[in-house]
Amino acid sequence: MLIVMQAHATEEQVKAVCERIESLGYRAYAIPGAQRTAIGITGNQGEVEAGGLEEMPGVGEVIRVSKPYKLVSRDLKEEDTVLRFAGSSATIGGRDLAVMAGPCAIESREQAMAVAERVHRAGAQFFRGGAYKPRTSPYSFQGLGEEGLKIMAEVRERFGLLVVTEAVDNESLDLVEKYADIIQIGARNMQNFSLLKRVGRARKPVLLKRGMSATLEEFLMAAEYIMSEGNYEVVLCERGVRTFADHTRNTLDLSVVPAVDRLSHLPIVVDPSHGTGKRNKVLPMSRAAVAVGADGLLVEVHNNPDRALSDGMQSLFPDQFDELMAEVRQIAAVLHRNLPMAGAQAQPAVSRG
Amino acid sequence: MLIVMQAHATEEQVKAVCERIESLGYRAYAIPGAQRTAIGITGNQGEVEAGGLEEMPGVGEVIRVSKPYKLVSRDLKEEDTVLRFAGSSATIGGRDLAVMAGPCAIESREQAMAVAERVHRAGAQFFRGGAYKPRTSPYSFQGLGEEGLKIMAEVRERFGLLVVTEAVDNESLDLVEKYADIIQIGARNMQNFSLLKRVGRARKPVLLKRGMSATLEEFLMAAEYIMSEGNYEVVLCERGVRTFADHTRNTLDLSVVPAVDRLSHLPIVVDPSHGTGKRNKVLPMSRAAVAVGADGLLVEVHNNPDRALSDGMQSLFPDQFDELMAEVRQIAAVLHRNLPMAGAQAQPAVSRG
Amino acid sequence: MLIVMQAHATEEQVKAVCERIESLGYRAYAIPGAQRTAIGITGNQGEVEAGGLEEMPGVGEVIRVSKPYKLVSRDLKEEDTVLRFAGSSATIGGRDLAVMAGPCAIESREQAMAVAERVHRAGAQFFRGGAYKPRTSPYSFQGLGEEGLKIMAEVRERFGLLVVTEAVDNESLDLVEKYADIIQIGARNMQNFSLLKRVGRARKPVLLKRGMSATLEEFLMAAEYIMSEGNYEVVLCERGVRTFADHTRNTLDLSVVPAVDRLSHLPIVVDPSHGTGKRNKVLPMSRAAVAVGADGLLVEVHNNPDRALSDGMQSLFPDQFDELMAEVRQIAAVLHRNLPMAGAQAQPAVSRG
Amino acid sequence: MLIVMQAHATEEQVKAVCERIESLGYRAYAIPGAQRTAIGITGNQGEVEAGGLEEMPGVGEVIRVSKPYKLVSRDLKEEDTVLRFAGSSATIGGRDLAVMAGPCAIESREQAMAVAERVHRAGAQFFRGGAYKPRTSPYSFQGLGEEGLKIMAEVRERFGLLVVTEAVDNESLDLVEKYADIIQIGARNMQNFSLLKRVGRARKPVLLKRGMSATLEEFLMAAEYIMSEGNYEVVLCERGVRTFADHTRNTLDLSVVPAVDRLSHLPIVVDPSHGTGKRNKVLPMSRAAVAVGADGLLVEVHNNPDRALSDGMQSLFPDQFDELMAEVRQIAAVLHRNLPMAGAQAQPAVSRG
Repeated sequence: MLIVMQAHATEEQVKAVCERIESLGYRAYAIPGAQRTAIGITGNQGEVEAGGLEEMPGVGEVIRVSKPYKLVSRDLKEEDTVLRFAGSSATIGGRDLAVMAGPCAIESREQAMAVAERVHRAGAQFFRGGAYKPRTSPYSFQGLGEEGLKIMAEVRERFGLLVVTEAVDNESLDLVEKYADIIQIGARNMQNFSLLKRVGRARKPVLLKRGMSATLEEFLMAAEYIMSEGNYEVVLCERGVRTFADHTRNTLDLSVVPAVDRLSHLPIVVDPSHGTGKRNKVLPMSRAAVAVGADGLLVEVHNNPDRALSDGMQSLFPDQFDELMAEVRQIAAVLHRNLPMAGAQAQPAVSRG
Repeated sequence: MLIVMQAHATEEQVKAVCERIESLGYRAYAIPGAQRTAIGITGNQGEVEAGGLEEMPGVGEVIRVSKPYKLVSRDLKEEDTVLRFAGSSATIGGRDLAVMAGPCAIESREQAMAVAERVHRAGAQFFRGGAYKPRTSPYSFQGLGEEGLKIMAEVRERFGLLVVTEAVDNESLDLVEKYADIIQIGARNMQNFSLLKRVGRARKPVLLKRGMSATLEEFLMAAEYIMSEGNYEVVLCERGVRTFADHTRNTLDLSVVPAVDRLSHLPIVVDPSHGTGKRNKVLPMSRAAVAVGADGLLVEVHNNPDRALSDGMQSLFPDQFDELMAEVRQIAAVLHRNLPMAGAQAQPAVSRG
Repeated sequence: MLIVMQAHATEEQVKAVCERIESLGYRAYAIPGAQRTAIGITGNQGEVEAGGLEEMPGVGEVIRVSKPYKLVSRDLKEEDTVLRFAGSSATIGGRDLAVMAGPCAIESREQAMAVAERVHRAGAQFFRGGAYKPRTSPYSFQGLGEEGLKIMAEVRERFGLLVVTEAVDNESLDLVEKYADIIQIGARNMQNFSLLKRVGRARKPVLLKRGMSATLEEFLMAAEYIMSEGNYEVVLCERGVRTFADHTRNTLDLSVVPAVDRLSHLPIVVDPSHGTGKRNKVLPMSRAAVAVGADGLLVEVHNNPDRALSDGMQSLFPDQFDELMAEVRQIAAVLHRNLPMAGAQAQPAVSRG
Repeated sequence: MLIVMQAHATEEQVKAVCERIESLGYRAYAIPGAQRTAIGITGNQGEVEAGGLEEMPGVGEVIRVSKPYKLVSRDLKEEDTVLRFAGSSATIGGRDLAVMAGPCAIESREQAMAVAERVHRAGAQFFRGGAYKPRTSPYSFQGLGEEGLKIMAEVRERFGLLVVTEAVDNESLDLVEKYADIIQIGARNMQNFSLLKRVGRARKPVLLKRGMSATLEEFLMAAEYIMSEGNYEVVLCERGVRTFADHTRNTLDLSVVPAVDRLSHLPIVVDPSHGTGKRNKVLPMSRAAVAVGADGLLVEVHNNPDRALSDGMQSLFPDQFDELMAEVRQIAAVLHRNLPMAGAQAQPAVSRG
């Protein structure tokens, strides 16, 4: 259930409604919008008894929610959610496209710096890399762990890139929360509800990848889990779903981008690297992702893909990434969106010191 | 097996090789390319005994084909296939994008003319409409039959639009071949091999839609069926595949466009109307289709979608189609492709007389 | 819309209702049941105006149909449909299990007789074999055509086995109807509506295979197409659907058997050979199919699977088929169903005369 | 890589080989079989350098593993794994079928006892119930937690039923390990590799459910994760995969049972309740599961399904479960497997004291 306050409702009125809700045994979330504040009610099993709420001062409307999600919904918050980052001009969900690029796994300081230098120069504002890798086989390379996180923190210092990296359990999440700017929850953990709740209590934004066989509703409900714990900074990520088709590793479902846009205020980015699993499909599918309206891209780039410890087949060479950025920039312009120019203007944090 | 002739091979040499092949009990197809002629051998069950062929004058190379398709393959013909039409400037597979628009089903002369006028004015060069509708229920509207074909022929006369329409069996194919410019084979008939063979003997180009659960290889093999009968003018069409995802009617698999482009010289267009089944997804997915590199679009437009006898939910209003053309034109420019301007220049065939 | 007549309604009353329906411009199908006759109305586009019908003598009830199928539905006919064959004790849909066995394709008279001798001896009452093969590649063996049909007719003469074989288009259907006892419509043609209508006018029972990505409703609607033309002798066949799973060629969906049983009076058999594509899965999945309640099995048996011209990998050796029959017989007994004993009692029809 | 010791190899020889392996920087797992001991080598990235191992005393064979799994494989251990439980005659993977029945979620002591009494009386030897429920919505009932575990422990005391229940994270796993007899890992956590490793260090057997879109190889690799940490007591569970089919909630893939049986020595049970999501499909699919060769069933039973807090639609009434057991018992007999008779002989643990 949602309580939509009147445009002129005072803070005291909002507070009073929240208190009443909690006195009824539910949880209340006040979500300020540009024009009016909405209050989400959760914690109810079944129908909320809310007769009295409608009469309270400042209450505009009480909406009984038929969809199972609330906090992710545009019904609750009409305006697009835009994520901002302290000390950076980068945003996610606004007019600028967010490009997150880097190697599948951090393999060494040298590799990370070499890739970061190139993706920064090409205009990416986010550096993605794995320190904890969920691998199908227990015998595959599982990532450098905290050592990898430290290397990425160094990348941020040196190039001013914001760091996106995956947490796979509560232990790694504690460390990722400490070192990274965005905490990634991988496709295989999209319904690891325990981890979703934990990351809902983190103080960093979350990049939530769609599960391999998740319906749109399940995807939004996973975001709802995170938001229901109080973390409203969630970025959705389409990364391909599992189908019978075998010409790509997964089937990238671009139609989910406009579908999310209708139902939710959350931003959504697309990962064409995992979404296709083939290097030669990454560029065309990146163009398509921007054309369909995605808020950004998550792209694997490796300085030496043929020797990558994971996912080499789908990683771009740095020159290919340059080309991708050049093409995507033009598509973005058609949609009146912006892709910041080459790294020059994004001054490294270090040079500020 | 393919025989690739030398660049300077004479016509007599090509002919001699074909005769030798046929004397061995196989069928030979000479396929002239810009630089050299290739000869496909079909009709073999298992391995071809081809020792002697390699020694014949003019033969450059004998390629044992590991892939099950030959005639559709870029190995056989490197250059893109470009379809041209007598009395029209429209092409498919070249620099120009081919936009095919119109109602799902032809319902009346008035409806057809009203829609044709609008799609022509917006810049489409092809008119699509159904006279024979493969409907899931025997009790649904099945199309006007020959009456519908005649109406479409009148659309061609009046607006200079080329006509694309579906044939569902040998009987309807005889009529479609007579009235239409392009014969459509629908998704449900993609493996109706008998119909594929029959359309392979038609003298009109074929638009072949991907089956709902067809792999890329099966899709190409269906085209191979048509080509193996001698009809080389085939346009592929991605129209969504069946998956668990339920936010669209089908899941539009745009990655198949670059995948086809690598393997085959045939053009491929995208149908975002059937591919999503939802009007509000058609525009963004059309942009994405052009951005990924499709050679054209197949779009349902209806002057009164709410009263359409079939597929109204996915048909655009004419104003929405105008908007689509405007946006797609800009995306096309980024890929150095062209979308002809509004209908003015495409003079109706009639006015020429 | 369905008109359910009273139990004691006379033939004249049924006839009068049918005439009234047809005078309204619809088509009427009288379908006699054990206790009462039902009349299906088709040919309507949208709502039937049926006020007067309810008042006619002998009419018990007028049911507005919400489901898109009528004739296949248990709402229209409660009792199981049981198919019987002149000159044979075999049935489909009754207490006896119908076992249809034989090679994928008829390759020669010798092969057919060798296999028929073994499956007859093991207790099968139906001989399945392909004369027209829908092959993914135009270059694969396409069947012996009428020659194959003649061989199968000879099998019937010699062993008393009823012949099941596939028709792929109107031309082959004319011949199949002439030679066979049951006309098979393959999975790839399940939505070849033109062929469905044609077979709906045939005078032989139809075995309709589920399409590779057909929902239950689409499957039943395909049967409805056949029945809407007047042929009520339809046997459904589950043969596996296409999914991401790769340990079998298709995923055999046994739950469709009880699902069909709830909705429809038509019998349903299972094809574990195509449904798994692997010889070693055929026996366990045959047991499961009988245990779940299937009315029969369609099994590929070849006297020399390693040299089969098609589908050798999934064909059983005759000894394996003996084993299958022995195990299935015991499972059948648990469900109070019967599998006729070895071929001895099924005396060949003709050679006696 | 696997080292297969000679049949007469001594314990010292096994130990020596293990030590050599670990001195090379790998991990060694000695796995005693009925006739010979095998030693699995893990921890290698890429090829193991194993020249010296082949020459060591007692070594019979060194097998380079091409499949990505080792410990789950029949190549490593030919004999079926049979799980036994202290103080109980129940087994999993042997001649007896293991029937695990109970409510989806433990809702109260009364509910648990009522259901337990009935499933025990009907012959089940395992009680399944959820204390931690992974729910799609954060606002749905999430289980009673430790209170639920205590109730299940009481069920064991009173009826002698072994307790199977799910752990969803490390915290709940600590408690589940303490109270339960078998730790269930749910479908959504099948690739929660962190949880798999943790349960691999537990001292209780693990019931591992197949993920909704897991291939057979991924399923086996998830079991490999558990075994690679030292816990060899793993039971696999098929519970339906996600497909386009909509007549059941998931598509139960029974062919995976014989497929697992060929590749792995681990037992596999089937969950027809989640696998179909529909009460009326549970009985026929249970018969089919036993007929195909499953080692047991996991069935939801509720004393009042219409009021169940979760999954009521798929829960059997106790009388239906009686019927299921009666039918399954007969099918089991055909496969020479045994289903223990009604609860009488399985004396409650308590009454022994």
